[in-house]
Amino acid sequence: MPNATATASLDEMRRLFGELPGPDLAAAAAAAAREKDLTKPAGALGQLEELSAWLATWQARHPPRLDHPRICVFAGNHGVVRHGVSAYPADVTAQMVQNFTTGGAAVNQIAKLADADLRVYELALEQPTADFTEAPAMSDTDCAHAMAYGMMAVETGIDLLCLGEMGIGNTTAAAALAHALFGGAAADWTGPGTGVGGAALAAKAEIVGRAVALHNDDAGDPFDVLARLGGRELAAIAGAVLAARLARTPVVLDGYAATAAAAVLHAADPGALDHSVVAHVSAEPGHKRLLDRIGKRPLLDLGMRLGEASGAALVVPILRAALACHTGMATFAEAGVSGRED
Amino acid sequence: MPNATATASLDEMRRLFGELPGPDLAAAAAAAAREKDLTKPAGALGQLEELSAWLATWQARHPPRLDHPRICVFAGNHGVVRHGVSAYPADVTAQMVQNFTTGGAAVNQIAKLADADLRVYELALEQPTADFTEAPAMSDTDCAHAMAYGMMAVETGIDLLCLGEMGIGNTTAAAALAHALFGGAAADWTGPGTGVGGAALAAKAEIVGRAVALHNDDAGDPFDVLARLGGRELAAIAGAVLAARLARTPVVLDGYAATAAAAVLHAADPGALDHSVVAHVSAEPGHKRLLDRIGKRPLLDLGMRLGEASGAALVVPILRAALACHTGMATFAEAGVSGRED
Repeated sequence: MPNATATASLDEMRRLFGELPGPDLAAAAAAAAREKDLTKPAGALGQLEELSAWLATWQARHPPRLDHPRICVFAGNHGVVRHGVSAYPADVTAQMVQNFTTGGAAVNQIAKLADADLRVYELALEQPTADFTEAPAMSDTDCAHAMAYGMMAVETGIDLLCLGEMGIGNTTAAAALAHALFGGAAADWTGPGTGVGGAALAAKAEIVGRAVALHNDDAGDPFDVLARLGGRELAAIAGAVLAARLARTPVVLDGYAATAAAAVLHAADPGALDHSVVAHVSAEPGHKRLLDRIGKRPLLDLGMRLGEASGAALVVPILRAALACHTGMATFAEAGVSGRED
Repeated sequence: MPNATATASLDEMRRLFGELPGPDLAAAAAAAAREKDLTKPAGALGQLEELSAWLATWQARHPPRLDHPRICVFAGNHGVVRHGVSAYPADVTAQMVQNFTTGGAAVNQIAKLADADLRVYELALEQPTADFTEAPAMSDTDCAHAMAYGMMAVETGIDLLCLGEMGIGNTTAAAALAHALFGGAAADWTGPGTGVGGAALAAKAEIVGRAVALHNDDAGDPFDVLARLGGRELAAIAGAVLAARLARTPVVLDGYAATAAAAVLHAADPGALDHSVVAHVSAEPGHKRLLDRIGKRPLLDLGMRLGEASGAALVVPILRAALACHTGMATFAEAGVSGRED
């Protein structure tokens, strides 16, 4: 990770968190005013109407634009994999980063069709986080640096930020974050991930419960929880969500791990994710529970559970369609179409 | 409607129905064989994996293609509108056809983004069907001609057929078809359509119930039901679904009215829609009930209720993504990614 982030601290992140801009109500009003004149019954485009208004509101302009969507995949490795929580070896994280680089992964195909800029960010893959059943996954400084690294994904001129991850073992970290932030039982948040089942799944839940029990008493706020139970790619996603809010860039969150990372911000301030939508509900069972807790309705439910921003990338054409209808449709007056009779 | 269809009869349609080709099991097997080698946990792309296999199976080739999707909007007018079943005047059907032609409707924007061929088919708008509370909506010959007209939308070289409709009053016809084909109460199948509520909605349900009671005893089979209670645009959709099956062209059905038209074929043979998927579940409440009856799971649930193939068009990029993952992803061997440890 670059030197530019060397001075980041969790306190700096907490300070930035106090500066989150709210919705642009003028842009929202402009979107609503146009929407009601378009040649369709009011509300007939359903969530597409809400999405174009959401883009305007959080880009703070009307009409909004989707010329430059960026898809980010953050990759990290996890000390907890020594307990056999994944069906795949930890080497797969770096191998899949290579696969992203050479264009062979699912997200490459989807990003290309979506005409979106795909960026892959490695976070010290050769140096996994600590095994959080024994020690904090990251020091506060390491966590803050990972967040700062994620923040750098938000650059001027980007209209939309799609956030996903790659990290063997990170559904275990996601489950630990969700369990620590929202309570319940460890098993409620623990799922098969890449495909563990039976006794291995029960052991994974036990590890999640043990890790949360170890750290919860010392964790002062959600940022502390992130450092103790997260991972670098998850901290980077939290940082990217935060930076996107500051930069007026709407966010699309991918699956369970990306949502758990963003949920850290929700736990600190329930309005912190208002500029974010969740692309899809993953087949990973904890995801639906987590979406209920943070009050997000997913756009898609296609049984996907791959991560790597694949679900988020799939939403780009839907957002473009929402925007194209909003900006390109004729009004009743322009088209000479009669209005309602009542 | 052109002379080429002048000899069509419902008996001819029934005869064609006996010739429906089944799935191409060799193409399905080729898709399954490739899918298991791609760089992801088995099943991790969820329904995207099923969709690429479905395209192969019903195009009868592997790999399948999506270079030439066609979106069809069939438009018709309905005598039943004299009872005030719609919030909009019947003139809106022709006005919206003009809007499609000049590019101002929702489906124009979505089709353009999807790089799909959009065709609009008018079916004698100046001559509405009969008021089916008093007489059959169409004669058998008129119905067969409308089906034959729809069949002409299926041409060589089309990889996918998205089917939708425009017709003031046609959610009333759709409700009548569904009620006649699948029973239950008229109110179960009757919804607000373009936006009727209260007493007008209750009156709409009463009209649906009365129409079905009038015709049900005389209707010998689902094709008779279509003639008595459908409409020309709905008959055209049924014809297009039938022709697409014969031509090995997979079909995407749009909303409630399009699904009700296709459900006529399902009622005649439950396997008749195996080459079809349903794009989305409409906000029109009868649609979910109808999907349950014909055993179809919708791909999207975005609260849309516009018709005009808008939901079907929105699915084209998702199908393209499914296909691109299937054909473009690297295998584990190609990418040098390790497999499962167990």
